[in-house]
Amino acid sequence: VAAESYSVGLDLGGTNLVAAAYSSKRGILVRTKVFTLAQQGPAKLLNRLAGEAAKVIALAELHPSQIKAVGLGSPGPLDAQRGVILDSPNIKGWKNIAVAQRLGAKLGRRVVLENDAVAAAIGEHRLGAGRGSRLMLMLTLGTGVGGAILVDGKPFRGQGTWAGEFGHMFLSPDGPAIKTGQRGTLEGYASATAIAARARVLMAKNKKSRLWALAEGDLKKVSSRLVHQAFKQRDALATQVWRETAAWLGLGLASLINIFNPERIVVAGGVMLGGSELLALATRAARSRALGRGTGCKIVKAALGDDAGVIGAAELGLRP
Amino acid sequence: VAAESYSVGLDLGGTNLVAAAYSSKRGILVRTKVFTLAQQGPAKLLNRLAGEAAKVIALAELHPSQIKAVGLGSPGPLDAQRGVILDSPNIKGWKNIAVAQRLGAKLGRRVVLENDAVAAAIGEHRLGAGRGSRLMLMLTLGTGVGGAILVDGKPFRGQGTWAGEFGHMFLSPDGPAIKTGQRGTLEGYASATAIAARARVLMAKNKKSRLWALAEGDLKKVSSRLVHQAFKQRDALATQVWRETAAWLGLGLASLINIFNPERIVVAGGVMLGGSELLALATRAARSRALGRGTGCKIVKAALGDDAGVIGAAELGLRP
Repeated sequence: VAAESYSVGLDLGGTNLVAAAYSSKRGILVRTKVFTLAQQGPAKLLNRLAGEAAKVIALAELHPSQIKAVGLGSPGPLDAQRGVILDSPNIKGWKNIAVAQRLGAKLGRRVVLENDAVAAAIGEHRLGAGRGSRLMLMLTLGTGVGGAILVDGKPFRGQGTWAGEFGHMFLSPDGPAIKTGQRGTLEGYASATAIAARARVLMAKNKKSRLWALAEGDLKKVSSRLVHQAFKQRDALATQVWRETAAWLGLGLASLINIFNPERIVVAGGVMLGGSELLALATRAARSRALGRGTGCKIVKAALGDDAGVIGAAELGLRP
Repeated sequence: VAAESYSVGLDLGGTNLVAAAYSSKRGILVRTKVFTLAQQGPAKLLNRLAGEAAKVIALAELHPSQIKAVGLGSPGPLDAQRGVILDSPNIKGWKNIAVAQRLGAKLGRRVVLENDAVAAAIGEHRLGAGRGSRLMLMLTLGTGVGGAILVDGKPFRGQGTWAGEFGHMFLSPDGPAIKTGQRGTLEGYASATAIAARARVLMAKNKKSRLWALAEGDLKKVSSRLVHQAFKQRDALATQVWRETAAWLGLGLASLINIFNPERIVVAGGVMLGGSELLALATRAARSRALGRGTGCKIVKAALGDDAGVIGAAELGLRP
């Protein structure tokens, strides 16, 4: 029987920084959540990361020497192998930083860096909806659309630092313009941003939709969450947007099945928080298009919610 | 220095069966090509495969005991690990056949079965346009569109027997109907069949196209080869078809780059035999869409032509 071992997980987001002390046998021991406050600059952010790590170690009544390593999930692009942040559009100044080395020096522990989407996938694979799957894809429908590929629980990185940018898979040669990227991608159809944008376009021609009341008459307040709420209230406009989103998502899922023949696809992100109808509709659409109806592939909703990233980061800290 | 070792490669197609005796140091020693004659049934086909293997061994002046193993590339779906043909729409009766075991018994040698597209990819990786690449994708534009994924020269098989069905990647929610499969796939836009079909539709509205003369007034004679020929003669209709094909192919290549971040994509098949213009146009379209312009990925034309499959099959015969 292996002895219990410990790590720290850090999940860095544009808004929040989540930290956890973690046990190989008992999972999360202690969890904290603070604001990222990226505007204070990268030096202060490194201090805050070190501070939160020290805090969860103390709260879990561990000694730093008991921590095998600290896993950090961060938005990319980054070089996980070298432990360097290359760029990070959502965190100001978080660019060209040898974060594994610098944070490691502050903490006196080894620091393992990983892309936040990959970290979340590892979390779902270890303790969530991806458990036991040998080839797992993860699709995160949030502000953007992220992706990850895990083979036996380990990230598949293409030729170098990244792979699995499923949000940038093309589902059409054209499509609505989006801020980050090209027309016609899955991100342009199924991200929270895209869902809200499509609803806004339709609302301009339809003053009767419930969405107007839910958004208090302010187009800026329209979000994928509100669209989902209006859909639950059987609003026709929101139903149209939701069904279109499911159809595009289904098309993307069918392509992923035909390209990878995966065992499981785990779908996560803010768009999924409202309920399971979107995924049920999308799965039906995907099966009607996939080779052999994709019978070998389970399409499931993520199980760990916001904790997937910090669990995955902590798991990386336990690995040799 | 490793000693020279020998294998036999068999490349089974709907029309032709190619066989080769192969050396680890000198490549193809002897090569034969006969008709497949699938209509005679699977028992005769197994005999023909065994006969061709024996013939190339004799022609190379080898003794059967010197042959490490026989590699067989066959159209699928098949189970490479178990050595069983599951189905094969293009070869009559070639279905539910334990070919590795049955052919192995006839020859007294181990037989390794592989999907023909994967075998061709292994050939290109070993001796052709994929040499030295650690993550290589292959795309074969023929009657249909096939694909393969090689990691360090070994096939990536998804959760089981297959992966890399890039022909069944969706580039649009609709699109022209095709015989095998769904609307809107890469196969429906960039296979030889799809290219000819699109030209025929346009020809009905354009009696001035050179294609009418090249096809001797017979729509049935229109092929992707003739469309390419008319394109070279600057025919407007053929140019339109060729440019549209390149745009769709470019969209598919951009998706593959964003999904895999591969080192190399090798494009093969009958559609590529005419020349390099299609791939040059498609590559430009792909780079305008791919993340970071796909600078890390080389997109190249296959180098081994019809020999890729038999070389790959023979290479598999050399492996442990």
